[in-house]
Amino acid sequence: MRTAQLNIGIIGGGVMGTKHASIINAEGTGRVVAVADPVSDRLATSLGVPNHVDYQHLLSMPGLDAVVVASPNDQHVTTALACLNRSIPVLLEKPVASSIEEGQKLAAALEGISTPILVGHHRRHNAAVTAAQSFIHDGGLGRIVAVNSLFLSRKPEDYFNQAWHRLKGAGVLLINLVHDIDLLRYLCGDITRVAAITSSGSRGYEVEDTAAVTAEFASGALGTFIVSDSAASPVNWDQVSADDTSFPRHPGVDTHLITGTKGSLTLPQLTHYYYPDDAKGHWKIPMAAQSLPAAETETYANQWKHFLDVIDGTAEPIVSVTDALRTIEIVEAIRAAAIDGKTTAI
Amino acid sequence: MRTAQLNIGIIGGGVMGTKHASIINAEGTGRVVAVADPVSDRLATSLGVPNHVDYQHLLSMPGLDAVVVASPNDQHVTTALACLNRSIPVLLEKPVASSIEEGQKLAAALEGISTPILVGHHRRHNAAVTAAQSFIHDGGLGRIVAVNSLFLSRKPEDYFNQAWHRLKGAGVLLINLVHDIDLLRYLCGDITRVAAITSSGSRGYEVEDTAAVTAEFASGALGTFIVSDSAASPVNWDQVSADDTSFPRHPGVDTHLITGTKGSLTLPQLTHYYYPDDAKGHWKIPMAAQSLPAAETETYANQWKHFLDVIDGTAEPIVSVTDALRTIEIVEAIRAAAIDGKTTAI
Repeated sequence: MRTAQLNIGIIGGGVMGTKHASIINAEGTGRVVAVADPVSDRLATSLGVPNHVDYQHLLSMPGLDAVVVASPNDQHVTTALACLNRSIPVLLEKPVASSIEEGQKLAAALEGISTPILVGHHRRHNAAVTAAQSFIHDGGLGRIVAVNSLFLSRKPEDYFNQAWHRLKGAGVLLINLVHDIDLLRYLCGDITRVAAITSSGSRGYEVEDTAAVTAEFASGALGTFIVSDSAASPVNWDQVSADDTSFPRHPGVDTHLITGTKGSLTLPQLTHYYYPDDAKGHWKIPMAAQSLPAAETETYANQWKHFLDVIDGTAEPIVSVTDALRTIEIVEAIRAAAIDGKTTAI
Repeated sequence: MRTAQLNIGIIGGGVMGTKHASIINAEGTGRVVAVADPVSDRLATSLGVPNHVDYQHLLSMPGLDAVVVASPNDQHVTTALACLNRSIPVLLEKPVASSIEEGQKLAAALEGISTPILVGHHRRHNAAVTAAQSFIHDGGLGRIVAVNSLFLSRKPEDYFNQAWHRLKGAGVLLINLVHDIDLLRYLCGDITRVAAITSSGSRGYEVEDTAAVTAEFASGALGTFIVSDSAASPVNWDQVSADDTSFPRHPGVDTHLITGTKGSLTLPQLTHYYYPDDAKGHWKIPMAAQSLPAAETETYANQWKHFLDVIDGTAEPIVSVTDALRTIEIVEAIRAAAIDGKTTAI
């Protein structure tokens, strides 16, 4: 049982830094002792702690137990490396890196050292995801056969006032599909081949606004993933899960369907369809439906608790740098497949 | 107002021939006067009408007003041509032909003649589909952005005792996905580019058992379609619509999602999501949901009534030979794309 609160630094005082700070202070197992943000002291002021313009000053504070890195994507690797140099455990916001090369540099730096990094793919800490993962890995669906994933949203026009949202490096593949790829890899295993068609026809920006993807998993299962930021639809994780309460919620809707030889499962509703007598089941036999149970917990709080275990050395990071990097490799392979018009092995 | 019953011949006394006969006799606007089936007089006997071993004998009966062709797929074109030679209107079961070349022969024979053929893609006569088609074509969803289609079923093992179900020419693309392609072309317009990954890993037969497809529509919309005959799932049209009562029904489930710039629509539930103030709508604004109304009608009866209008010349066939042939071209392009590993224009 932990008795002392950990001293935590937050690097990056934007939306995600603020989110992490509120969870940490609310849970009581840690306290935010300082923030580093070069452009705004808003978060530090609201918490009543110092703000450092240079995050190296934060890292040199005595008694710092861990750091949350929620800076802009292109600073993730440099900042994480600086933390490792000082043996400070890191919760690193996704994406792990803004390029594969950069991510590989971080993975290489981790070899042979014991300071842990957890990558913040928060969905893996969602209670429905945790329940689904156990159920699938225990063989509840038999062998996985086919998987479907939907992320269909209309983002506001002013979202694209930020220039980087219109330019290469953003787009629905890297910003949105990356979450579904991580989720499905966690639930169904590695992805080894992809084909894709992308479009920038809705918004006309340099980046794609819509992408349709087919994937083959290492298990042999096939998947289709579709993602768009210009479709007026509530069918996306942010609006059907309770992970981020800044989104309006459409609780009756599913975004993912995973089917196997023995049954199928939806997420996040966890509706499980199965044949009461599996050996005799086929399409002319009615399937039974049940809701799998899931804990009533808060996703970001679960992630924080897991990070505490990672710091203590009682758990391996549920999302390692290598793991998160593989997801980025897959997203980049999808982009390449769409450009080349070729099914691409990864 | 039609006063006299039409005299109808049924060629092929199997499952579909029997289905058509029962609809025709129940509706009262026609009566089955003869059946042609070379191997069984079961249907004819049950109806109390003559069975012809040679369908040419049926076609030479005096006073025959129209024919339903429900023979094996590879006889569709020859039989339809024989009907046209005698100027007898035809309701031709899908697929229109067992190869593109054969279908083109039938399309060529139709040029300059007025005897009508309706192809039996029955889903277009489903009341929910009719309602969706009107709604979409009247601009209810704005411009279509992204489309998702699911057909995930576990067929019984004895389905594959019929050798042709295991061999090239069958498979989930030609047998099952063909229906979704027809449906989505009807709702969203032509498909012009496809990429695909297929697998025969679940059953190990010559034909694919699972296929994951991405498609680009002529409008620029993108789509993902996934289909499997070895996934234990109720998420397929046959089990969520009431079209075929020989399947157990899972009425709460949707198989298709069509999203546009103004809203989205599911089928067959017809759940319509939209922003109450469309101009201000985006992912942080709650969407309203309503159920679009659909007539409470029976799909095959609707198809029969439409065929009567086609015979009378008061309606163009809702599924023409050319139209049905395009669907087969797309399915063949999907197969080719999966084999070549290349995105394929059609």
